[in-house]
Amino acid sequence: MSKVAVVLAAGQGTRMNSDLPKVVHRAAGRPLINWALEGISGIEPDRTMVVVGHGAERVLELLPPEVEHVVQEPQGGTGHAVQVALDALGDLADDDIVVISYGDMPLVSSDTYMALASLCEPGQAAITSVLLDDPRGYGRVMRDSDGRVVKVVEERDAAPEELQVRELNAGLYAFAAGDIRMAVSQLRSDNAQGELYLTDVIGILSAEGVNVATVQAEAHDLLGVNTHAHLAEIEEVLRRRINQSWMERGVRMIDPSRTYVGHDVTLAAGVILYPGCHLEDGTVVEAGAVVGPDVFASESRIGPRCRVWYSVLRGAVVGEGAQVGPFASLRPGVTLEAAAKAGTFVEMKNTTVREGAKVPHLSYLGDAEVGEGANVGAGTITCNYDGFEKHETHIGAGAFIGSDTMLVAPVRIGDGAMTGAGSVITKDVEPGALGMERSEQTNIQDFAARREARYRASRSREEA
Amino acid sequence: MSKVAVVLAAGQGTRMNSDLPKVVHRAAGRPLINWALEGISGIEPDRTMVVVGHGAERVLELLPPEVEHVVQEPQGGTGHAVQVALDALGDLADDDIVVISYGDMPLVSSDTYMALASLCEPGQAAITSVLLDDPRGYGRVMRDSDGRVVKVVEERDAAPEELQVRELNAGLYAFAAGDIRMAVSQLRSDNAQGELYLTDVIGILSAEGVNVATVQAEAHDLLGVNTHAHLAEIEEVLRRRINQSWMERGVRMIDPSRTYVGHDVTLAAGVILYPGCHLEDGTVVEAGAVVGPDVFASESRIGPRCRVWYSVLRGAVVGEGAQVGPFASLRPGVTLEAAAKAGTFVEMKNTTVREGAKVPHLSYLGDAEVGEGANVGAGTITCNYDGFEKHETHIGAGAFIGSDTMLVAPVRIGDGAMTGAGSVITKDVEPGALGMERSEQTNIQDFAARREARYRASRSREEA
Amino acid sequence: MSKVAVVLAAGQGTRMNSDLPKVVHRAAGRPLINWALEGISGIEPDRTMVVVGHGAERVLELLPPEVEHVVQEPQGGTGHAVQVALDALGDLADDDIVVISYGDMPLVSSDTYMALASLCEPGQAAITSVLLDDPRGYGRVMRDSDGRVVKVVEERDAAPEELQVRELNAGLYAFAAGDIRMAVSQLRSDNAQGELYLTDVIGILSAEGVNVATVQAEAHDLLGVNTHAHLAEIEEVLRRRINQSWMERGVRMIDPSRTYVGHDVTLAAGVILYPGCHLEDGTVVEAGAVVGPDVFASESRIGPRCRVWYSVLRGAVVGEGAQVGPFASLRPGVTLEAAAKAGTFVEMKNTTVREGAKVPHLSYLGDAEVGEGANVGAGTITCNYDGFEKHETHIGAGAFIGSDTMLVAPVRIGDGAMTGAGSVITKDVEPGALGMERSEQTNIQDFAARREARYRASRSREEA
Repeated sequence: MSKVAVVLAAGQGTRMNSDLPKVVHRAAGRPLINWALEGISGIEPDRTMVVVGHGAERVLELLPPEVEHVVQEPQGGTGHAVQVALDALGDLADDDIVVISYGDMPLVSSDTYMALASLCEPGQAAITSVLLDDPRGYGRVMRDSDGRVVKVVEERDAAPEELQVRELNAGLYAFAAGDIRMAVSQLRSDNAQGELYLTDVIGILSAEGVNVATVQAEAHDLLGVNTHAHLAEIEEVLRRRINQSWMERGVRMIDPSRTYVGHDVTLAAGVILYPGCHLEDGTVVEAGAVVGPDVFASESRIGPRCRVWYSVLRGAVVGEGAQVGPFASLRPGVTLEAAAKAGTFVEMKNTTVREGAKVPHLSYLGDAEVGEGANVGAGTITCNYDGFEKHETHIGAGAFIGSDTMLVAPVRIGDGAMTGAGSVITKDVEPGALGMERSEQTNIQDFAARREARYRASRSREEA
Repeated sequence: MSKVAVVLAAGQGTRMNSDLPKVVHRAAGRPLINWALEGISGIEPDRTMVVVGHGAERVLELLPPEVEHVVQEPQGGTGHAVQVALDALGDLADDDIVVISYGDMPLVSSDTYMALASLCEPGQAAITSVLLDDPRGYGRVMRDSDGRVVKVVEERDAAPEELQVRELNAGLYAFAAGDIRMAVSQLRSDNAQGELYLTDVIGILSAEGVNVATVQAEAHDLLGVNTHAHLAEIEEVLRRRINQSWMERGVRMIDPSRTYVGHDVTLAAGVILYPGCHLEDGTVVEAGAVVGPDVFASESRIGPRCRVWYSVLRGAVVGEGAQVGPFASLRPGVTLEAAAKAGTFVEMKNTTVREGAKVPHLSYLGDAEVGEGANVGAGTITCNYDGFEKHETHIGAGAFIGSDTMLVAPVRIGDGAMTGAGSVITKDVEPGALGMERSEQTNIQDFAARREARYRASRSREEA
Repeated sequence: MSKVAVVLAAGQGTRMNSDLPKVVHRAAGRPLINWALEGISGIEPDRTMVVVGHGAERVLELLPPEVEHVVQEPQGGTGHAVQVALDALGDLADDDIVVISYGDMPLVSSDTYMALASLCEPGQAAITSVLLDDPRGYGRVMRDSDGRVVKVVEERDAAPEELQVRELNAGLYAFAAGDIRMAVSQLRSDNAQGELYLTDVIGILSAEGVNVATVQAEAHDLLGVNTHAHLAEIEEVLRRRINQSWMERGVRMIDPSRTYVGHDVTLAAGVILYPGCHLEDGTVVEAGAVVGPDVFASESRIGPRCRVWYSVLRGAVVGEGAQVGPFASLRPGVTLEAAAKAGTFVEMKNTTVREGAKVPHLSYLGDAEVGEGANVGAGTITCNYDGFEKHETHIGAGAFIGSDTMLVAPVRIGDGAMTGAGSVITKDVEPGALGMERSEQTNIQDFAARREARYRASRSREEA
């Protein structure tokens, strides 16, 4: 049996107040269309066809290579979209199964698609329905006196007694290809919106003797997105699912409702996450690391037993037992090796800090290498940019950089070398040497009193 | 028809453990009394009279000019407060409508007040009631066998069968002025607390043949404040309402439950707010700006397509496409023009950064101007305070300020000028010139080893 | 009547994915076993015996001195654990009361233990039961036709009709010592797990004519911990309880669900906590202090009317009206006296800042004292570590430290003395004197243009 999934990437996003197609909006760091495709991938479809309309190129760049697409232009309703998809799919056999879903329903599980597909065969269709106390806005599933589904009635077309029905159409279907081809060819646009409604195929199929089975779904899983409020709701559900799954695998979260873990992040058992962690874009956290409160990390690796808090990491690699923060910013190309430290008010970019080296406070290191066990004093800055180009700084193993040292790159500080506090180092310092740039200190006695007297005198003159 | 709203700003705040009158406490950045007045303003009352007691002056300074007030001194119960208010209102016509509410019920909607007022006329009063499973603490609404409201019984005075009643008095009323004047004149204080209870007017009016209609309200909207736990609950409801409303208008919030937007903040469609944003005091965020995580902004304007994160803004203006943070503090009087940058560990006060100029790291700029396209190196500080007065620093367009430059104000760096790293600049630098303050670098060979030997020797002597 | 509490510190922590014994995990900063012991302490037991197994030493170090323990080795089931505990308790009288609980049920209240103990006497046992719609996983409480408890049936051993029972065994018991000794001696391990089940004692006692009373408990209070998801749930309940209790006592919390207050923290009425506060390890906050957003404070004291925000405090003492942050880090040994300030990008360690002294920006002070009313310029650093030892810096009252001053310790700046911006101060500065280390400023005209020309020429050569 061949299975084919059609994703209807419908939605002009009108109610999202946005130029973006609706399915491009992200929840938990991933576009809605990709969440939908993941749900569908659980049934291992032979082909997946996405129907795109408005803003097609923004959708297309999100599709994995194995997913096909077709542009529906102009858009003539959901029934038309399925016609377009079937045309694009071309040579389906009559007993191939077509599963139909929406690109803006990111929470539907593979189980639901599986149930639909397994109930379906030629002469037998399957739809999802949901029971809601408040049915407003949904199409009603109408059954005959034998309980057989005979049609779906849209709310605006429903008679008063039909409006009482609490079994609602959830918008997910499976049909044999022959059946759905037959049914969509009979769709007519003589309705209020002048469009082809996909829901009309249920009545057509039933009239043609096709039996329509229903899969009961949870309202919860069927949340669609029409507003940013819906998107926030979906984000919350995904957050709960993701975090629940990590906690089951041994991750400790002090407050999972305030812990934001992207879909492509990897956490080890024994990790502790404090509130306010935002982990994104393939970030990996290894066993025993304690992260947060308030850490942003994207495209980063946080090693075993690290302590990272109140910091921002982008494209950084933090080795075993290293310490970051509070209040550090590690930018792309930073590697802290084992037991290294990027402390308080420390920013780094394109810099390697070797094992056990420390940069404890108030420093900016860019395009630099800090040797094993070196100590970089507070206020140290690599002057890596001369206004034209970036240059490199090398600090040797065991070096001791005095506070407020300016390292004017390109420059090398040798192994075990030192720099004097407040020095501007423009020339290399040899291993074991002290590099120093400083004048003599002069103390001027009674300066403060005389200065104040001068100030008061000048103020008196001004005011006179 | 003339409408008059009376707000009863009751509440000695005894259970709030605070010296402040209860209605002065803030929720979502606005005092409770002002939330109540906003709800009432929806019915466009001709006059609004606030009855104040304890801590009157703290309440009065919050009242808009069109709102009148009267001091109830001493406080003799809710019925007495209405007597005082009616006296202060003076010459009401008998068919004027008096709406009565409380200053500590901030969630009541204009719709509820509207419903009360529209049901009311001479001979016809209106009260709100609510149905609760747990009626404890509320007065019960008693009806006769025809279903007509005959009185409200306070819980402490209720007979056992009266305690079973689940329809409760919510404390909001509308009366014709003639009716309420008549009723309050008949109130008596022969009760447990020796006070005049406003609820007794219902029985009096009913006995006098006035019909009492009821407006069903949601328990949700009737939350009052007696403890800080109530205040937190109300804050949460307001937060949800405010955020829901912004999301409907196209604002994306990753986690609305952690997004704190004041009542007087303006957000454009297309704004993205990450968790931990606190936006207050008239702050405006323009289209396409991405704000947060963890941003505090008061009295600030964040321009289109800005990126602001992990930062504090007070009285700052951030231009189109400008970047702020992570870890920046912009204090009053700061303007970043378009595409400017205040980066990591950067503090500014009373400073303008012109278009495209960058202050990327570890800097303090106060009373300064940074010219178009200038670049300010890490560690730059304006020494703007001499212990007596603040002075200004001007940095020209396209200037290049070396790392760790001290700009001793008043001082001017010309257009296209440069300063050497680590320089203390006390004299103006001409356009295109280099200002430099530095000694020669000296390298002392083998210093580290000799220093360590000296240290070890001295330690040995000490220990000997 | 003698009461004895037995805590069963069971749990190999298998589902926690952790090496730690389950009861050692913390919620709201306190290990589960200590939460359980606190609940039990409400009945003022004469003796408390903890049965430990796996990882005993990690549990033992958490027990207060008055609590006894016994090691169950090997572990032969819950019935065996009680046998071991009774042996260890030794000489109990038959009418002593034994209360049995679990170390991983931190939310059980003293009231529940009290109810159990008070219902119990020789010939009369008491157990807790709970009514749940979803009984899965629990033992069922079976009653005879007179409603008398006759046994507890574990789910795996239950007959189909027994599975329908909704009254469930909550695992907390009180027995007369004579009764439980008799019952546990009859336990047999001929079951699926080959262990002695404590629940079997109910059937044994009932068969022996002991009456078994039940105490109805709330499901809420009976949450146990088997996964990190449970731990997060329990943390949330504890957070709500702790915060509710502080709000009742006059603390204002803008968002209690985002406010993390440890069990051993003390807050005064009138404190305001913004979201993102993590207060731990005995921290005290005094009246009128406004703390947060985003403050971590452990082992610290925050004085009356302080303002502390976006900062980290560890072992710091902050005096009345002092200001901290945004973005400050105060490490152990820091004292800010009244009205002192540690501003933006300021780190301190082992430092005292006297009354009214200010350290507003970009500074690191370690092992220092700042005199009354002194002003420390931006960029000031105490060079307290020479690579061998830490040394002290003293700044006198009313001193004025210029921006970017390096204070090379040990060093003293006298009262009312000054330092010049950018100076490296290696020698003491006398009271009232100016200490200065600086060269002459040189301006090189037209430097920028010539430098650019040189750069372009060299680039051309390279490219040629």
